[in-house]
Amino acid sequence: MALTDIATRTYDHGWRLDPIVRSLLDTDFYKLLMLQMIRHVHPDVQATFSLINRSTQVRLADEIDEGELRAQLDHARDVRFSKKELIWLAGNSFYGEARMFAPDFIAWLADFRLPEYELHKEDGQYRLTFAGPWTHTTMWEIPALSIINELRARSAMKDHGRFALDVLYARAKAKLWAKVEQLRTLPDLVLSDFSTRRRHGFLWQRWCVEALKEGLGDRFKGTSNVLLAMDADLEAIGTNAHELPMVLAALAETDEGVRQAPYRVLEEWRRHYRGNLLVVLPDAFGTAAFLRDAPDWVADWTGFRPDSAPPIAGGEQVIRWWQQHGRDPKEKLLIFSDGMDVDSIMETYGHFHGRVRTSFGWGTNLTNDFRGCDPDGGTALEPISLVAKVTSANGRPAVKLSDNPAKATGDPAEVARYLRLFGEEGRAAQRVEV
Amino acid sequence: MALTDIATRTYDHGWRLDPIVRSLLDTDFYKLLMLQMIRHVHPDVQATFSLINRSTQVRLADEIDEGELRAQLDHARDVRFSKKELIWLAGNSFYGEARMFAPDFIAWLADFRLPEYELHKEDGQYRLTFAGPWTHTTMWEIPALSIINELRARSAMKDHGRFALDVLYARAKAKLWAKVEQLRTLPDLVLSDFSTRRRHGFLWQRWCVEALKEGLGDRFKGTSNVLLAMDADLEAIGTNAHELPMVLAALAETDEGVRQAPYRVLEEWRRHYRGNLLVVLPDAFGTAAFLRDAPDWVADWTGFRPDSAPPIAGGEQVIRWWQQHGRDPKEKLLIFSDGMDVDSIMETYGHFHGRVRTSFGWGTNLTNDFRGCDPDGGTALEPISLVAKVTSANGRPAVKLSDNPAKATGDPAEVARYLRLFGEEGRAAQRVEV
Repeated sequence: MALTDIATRTYDHGWRLDPIVRSLLDTDFYKLLMLQMIRHVHPDVQATFSLINRSTQVRLADEIDEGELRAQLDHARDVRFSKKELIWLAGNSFYGEARMFAPDFIAWLADFRLPEYELHKEDGQYRLTFAGPWTHTTMWEIPALSIINELRARSAMKDHGRFALDVLYARAKAKLWAKVEQLRTLPDLVLSDFSTRRRHGFLWQRWCVEALKEGLGDRFKGTSNVLLAMDADLEAIGTNAHELPMVLAALAETDEGVRQAPYRVLEEWRRHYRGNLLVVLPDAFGTAAFLRDAPDWVADWTGFRPDSAPPIAGGEQVIRWWQQHGRDPKEKLLIFSDGMDVDSIMETYGHFHGRVRTSFGWGTNLTNDFRGCDPDGGTALEPISLVAKVTSANGRPAVKLSDNPAKATGDPAEVARYLRLFGEEGRAAQRVEV
Repeated sequence: MALTDIATRTYDHGWRLDPIVRSLLDTDFYKLLMLQMIRHVHPDVQATFSLINRSTQVRLADEIDEGELRAQLDHARDVRFSKKELIWLAGNSFYGEARMFAPDFIAWLADFRLPEYELHKEDGQYRLTFAGPWTHTTMWEIPALSIINELRARSAMKDHGRFALDVLYARAKAKLWAKVEQLRTLPDLVLSDFSTRRRHGFLWQRWCVEALKEGLGDRFKGTSNVLLAMDADLEAIGTNAHELPMVLAALAETDEGVRQAPYRVLEEWRRHYRGNLLVVLPDAFGTAAFLRDAPDWVADWTGFRPDSAPPIAGGEQVIRWWQQHGRDPKEKLLIFSDGMDVDSIMETYGHFHGRVRTSFGWGTNLTNDFRGCDPDGGTALEPISLVAKVTSANGRPAVKLSDNPAKATGDPAEVARYLRLFGEEGRAAQRVEV
């Protein structure tokens, strides 16, 4: 005989909503690292972030109720950092470094809240934009994406029966565990969860992270999700993202300023973090152009994260560049995080094993792989390629070229200008699945 | 139709035990404050703590299985401070003061574990002693008591049916909420949970603490339980306990040294905590003697915690003493924490309201009041008066006289010697119920 907790059930009846974002730490660690630098170095820049659904065949505005979306976004705006969370940020060590976040930044976070948003429907899609100080709009990226992805999953499951749901999660768990069994055959694997923005839902991400902790042991290094890192005593993982070179390039007054923007970002970063966290993200305007024009000191950085080239080709490209600059790849790190799954992780690991240190950031295919799991069939739970990108800075258009033209963003005329400035070498279209 | 989580149920089948102590923060805050000072000022003192069951009619060794008790004590010895817990201790503010715990103390805690114990049965009671460095044995007091109290409660409920248990907790919740309704009629009430050692169980204490947080709002100041304070973003409450004057008196070489021990404790405390946390616990060897011989500077301290005299008489005694020393009681604080319940809290609050600040530490009757709640009747869930006291220091007997002879502890010949030294003024036997 099973007892139902009647008080809890009755409380649940009265819920206005089941909130998706319940903590401002439920975000990616690199947002906090970037935020601290943005606030310090670029406190007055205005930046607009916009939602971009690359999976245009999925009509988000038909799948997700606008009232529910507004309720979730409004709820996220009511969330504040708790005292315990700020104490942890201030007191924890990240990548072995104490006091990564300065006391004045922590004090500023205590009053932080997400800024306003603008939302309307257009052609079956949501136009969702965040305009305002970069120090605030940047923080919407992850919660906006995780809200939309989770609302989409809820919508896909709302007519499922109880056993259909039970079987759905059973299949997803079995599927993930099969991946764990493959991955633990790799003795020197270093893997992290990078999935917050693309997850099926918060509780499912937590299940997956804790399953990897039990199933992979030391091979599982940590998670980009700061809340899960805190709660599970895992490492918080991440450094920086494309928005930094995109904004600095948009703000540049001259073509030369645009061309130098990627290196200026690195200089600011190295200075701000006193020589820690030295990971290069080379592909904002094409990796070939980045490497061709890079000053020699870039080769002193710890590692590269090729984020849009095919992993083996992208890694070999960086290794060649290190060798041309007289550096030993064995002392360097390559981080792979672009749409990885077990097969590509195993292939990439095998290819580079013994030649360079590797680390894998596993996203969509870790916590949003329900393909083949839904007893009711259909594709409504298949992941989509949804991003929130900076689209302008101080009113000037922001652009990303990427190594994969399918991942480029920005005003077409400005994209054409950047292509003239950086060149098209090495750019090759690949299908963007997730 | 209710679904049972089969994986969880199966995992539960395999439990070696349901651990009672799962965190070293599941202790009273004053233990940590005292521990830091003990380690700094008295690092080489050996102290023995012993379990004392004042409710001699309750034969603990008949109620609690020795194997289960050993399994719980052994499990507690395996628990370590987690990284997150140490970060919180180092980074949180206590009583408005930052950095209450020094970095070297935090580093030392990282390797801390509870020391060995000695257990045997005698006349239906458990003889449970902790011998070793004071810096370690002191930390057994709270977990030992909460383990025994929770095992006793589990034993009392193990043959209850499912509805009997459901009704039992329903009645206990209704009973607690009736107390909340009475207490929130007091506009200036300041109340804290002081119940860890006497609780019915950890989950019940957590329910009660969170219920007070919702039900009493600002009137509920915090909890002595450090883990619950961290998890619920509440104030951690507490300063010091009888073990300090008891050990210092035991170590004294002369009668005069014994007489001066209570004031030496205060001097050490004030110096160690740089003038913070100035609460006097006056009754270790009788409050009348303490006040009679106290230096004038004791009247500069913020407050007193009369812990064994009847609350109104004990409070009046301290107020008279402040007035004799020219201090204004309105600027002072009285903390009442000896066996309080709603009636005595309301009476004491009403008596002193407007004359002196008051604060209440609510223990046994907050989280272990199941009287009249058990559908199966009986008295097995009634709380008992169980303590773990320091009984010797560096091999010399430790003594507590108290204002209530029923709460005195120690070797009878040594108690007689202390009575000669301090006098018997003001001592009056009262029944010790909890």
